[in-house]
Amino acid sequence: MSTPTTYKRMVLASRPKGQVASDNFRLEEVPVPALKDGQILIRNHFLSLDPYMRGRMEETKSYAAPQPLNEVMIGGTVGEVVASKNPAFAVGSKVQGMLGWAEMGVSDGTMLRKIDTTHVPMSAYLGAVGMPGMTAWYGLTQIMRPKPGETIVVSAASGAVGSVVGQLAKFHGCRAVGIAGGAEKCAYVVNELGFDACVDYKAGNLTADLAKATPKGIDAVFENVGGAVFDACLAHMNPFGRIALCGLIAGYGGEPIPLKNVRSFLTMRLSLQGFIVSEHLELWPQGLTELEALVAIGKLKFRESIAQGLEAAPDAFIGLLKGKNFGKQLVKLV
Amino acid sequence: MSTPTTYKRMVLASRPKGQVASDNFRLEEVPVPALKDGQILIRNHFLSLDPYMRGRMEETKSYAAPQPLNEVMIGGTVGEVVASKNPAFAVGSKVQGMLGWAEMGVSDGTMLRKIDTTHVPMSAYLGAVGMPGMTAWYGLTQIMRPKPGETIVVSAASGAVGSVVGQLAKFHGCRAVGIAGGAEKCAYVVNELGFDACVDYKAGNLTADLAKATPKGIDAVFENVGGAVFDACLAHMNPFGRIALCGLIAGYGGEPIPLKNVRSFLTMRLSLQGFIVSEHLELWPQGLTELEALVAIGKLKFRESIAQGLEAAPDAFIGLLKGKNFGKQLVKLV
Repeated sequence: MSTPTTYKRMVLASRPKGQVASDNFRLEEVPVPALKDGQILIRNHFLSLDPYMRGRMEETKSYAAPQPLNEVMIGGTVGEVVASKNPAFAVGSKVQGMLGWAEMGVSDGTMLRKIDTTHVPMSAYLGAVGMPGMTAWYGLTQIMRPKPGETIVVSAASGAVGSVVGQLAKFHGCRAVGIAGGAEKCAYVVNELGFDACVDYKAGNLTADLAKATPKGIDAVFENVGGAVFDACLAHMNPFGRIALCGLIAGYGGEPIPLKNVRSFLTMRLSLQGFIVSEHLELWPQGLTELEALVAIGKLKFRESIAQGLEAAPDAFIGLLKGKNFGKQLVKLV
Repeated sequence: MSTPTTYKRMVLASRPKGQVASDNFRLEEVPVPALKDGQILIRNHFLSLDPYMRGRMEETKSYAAPQPLNEVMIGGTVGEVVASKNPAFAVGSKVQGMLGWAEMGVSDGTMLRKIDTTHVPMSAYLGAVGMPGMTAWYGLTQIMRPKPGETIVVSAASGAVGSVVGQLAKFHGCRAVGIAGGAEKCAYVVNELGFDACVDYKAGNLTADLAKATPKGIDAVFENVGGAVFDACLAHMNPFGRIALCGLIAGYGGEPIPLKNVRSFLTMRLSLQGFIVSEHLELWPQGLTELEALVAIGKLKFRESIAQGLEAAPDAFIGLLKGKNFGKQLVKLV
């Protein structure tokens, strides 16, 4: 395969007012730059789409700088080195990095990680063996700290993070209960991923169904959603329950969703910890090794929802924010 | 003083519907019981009124059993032993216990603590050197863990708990900012208690005034109130801020008050811990000794709001729930 002279990239054209729209993005075709000494050219095979990107599209105060306008949208990628002036990265190496919504990218090797695709497919490094998997691993092992016999609940249970949380909790000897949208996702969570139960929040009986699925109450929650789902969990917590707060996707539409059952924090002496997994890089080698091994032996399952081509990325991202994806949302770029 | 043959007590007559009303209580006059072996008769000098009592008046699931109807209202007391069939408690001993809303009480000595009134006035054992002081000490030292130079904020800052939180934070080298209702309370918090600033939430500019008082943001919060005050704090938190959740007095009127700035927990990676100080009795000897010493040398100041006679207790309690008291609310019983 000869190296092309141009490649496509997607930039942020405007900041969303309320819901994200496709015209917040703009597709550009740009020349492949000449490499300087120390640089590598990477052909991206997969782009990861994740809810955190919605936050970056805003200009509000947050843990990270906003995505600049007219620049390549931020995003995790896996791909192959196609040209190299850096002895640490040979042509043909597989690498994981943050090269954004683009078919190609140039890197000097910092923040680029070589990956081994012998036992694990390349795309898994964007999911169960990547940031989503590490997010699950960190929240479960460092914040929720579940003991055998405890009940843990995870929202967005069929997603890239939630699916790993529940499977790891089962390995810890817990009762794992998921919350997901729709009968199909719930069936997958129980039958394929091995959760003990999954509550369909779209079925209209969230509170009663969650109570039925957690007869001994809830000891720890991995919260990906916020709003009514989080409130329902709070109402069923056991004393000294732990909550790992990872996401508030329900509030990404613009208006924040108020939390009603605040009093549970007091009456049940709950602890809550918001976290960003990229701030705990010292634990990544341990976590990723465990996750890679579990995927390699088939104990940690995952599912992908793959959009074809960079042009499809905006609609796939909008769908992700609405919960339309089923499993880790990727964009295939080759 | 001869021992009387009857004494007065206040029982819970009915559970409040919304706001607490005086007719939720009933005053009774009952005979002083004869002591059995091992028992002590105590003449209570002071009764403590505290927001937690409001929670006990409800029948909802909480950390403690509800206050039973037609029984003496729960409450902390200090008093003097007036008759004893227990060799561990001589007549004339001063004791602190939970004898409730009553002029006298009988105890077998369990949960009764002998107090030393040589250097510290008896009533202080219901405030700065009692459960409120320990609540402040625990939240500050065990949950907020402030470092010198950090900014801490405490709501209900002129109250029995809040006043201790801020003074202890100053000893830890922090900037201490209070939130209180009204100019008089705020002046007391700054001028008498030595806080660096105090925001008057009744002045109508809570958000802007809090921002002005915390120019470097907020590193830790001791939350006694909830609702709009808590939301205002959340909007100004620094990354990795800690929140000790002690009370939600604003929600005690019946309707829970939703929390709006939930997203701050995620964007600022905050931790929140609800706590009940009576679950950490192992730390009381350390905390109370420190508090007693600080009061004895005049470094830890406190203020009391004293209602006269058991008959005045219901109105004083209703006033406490509305923030009408100024300092630790007590009822003088002798």
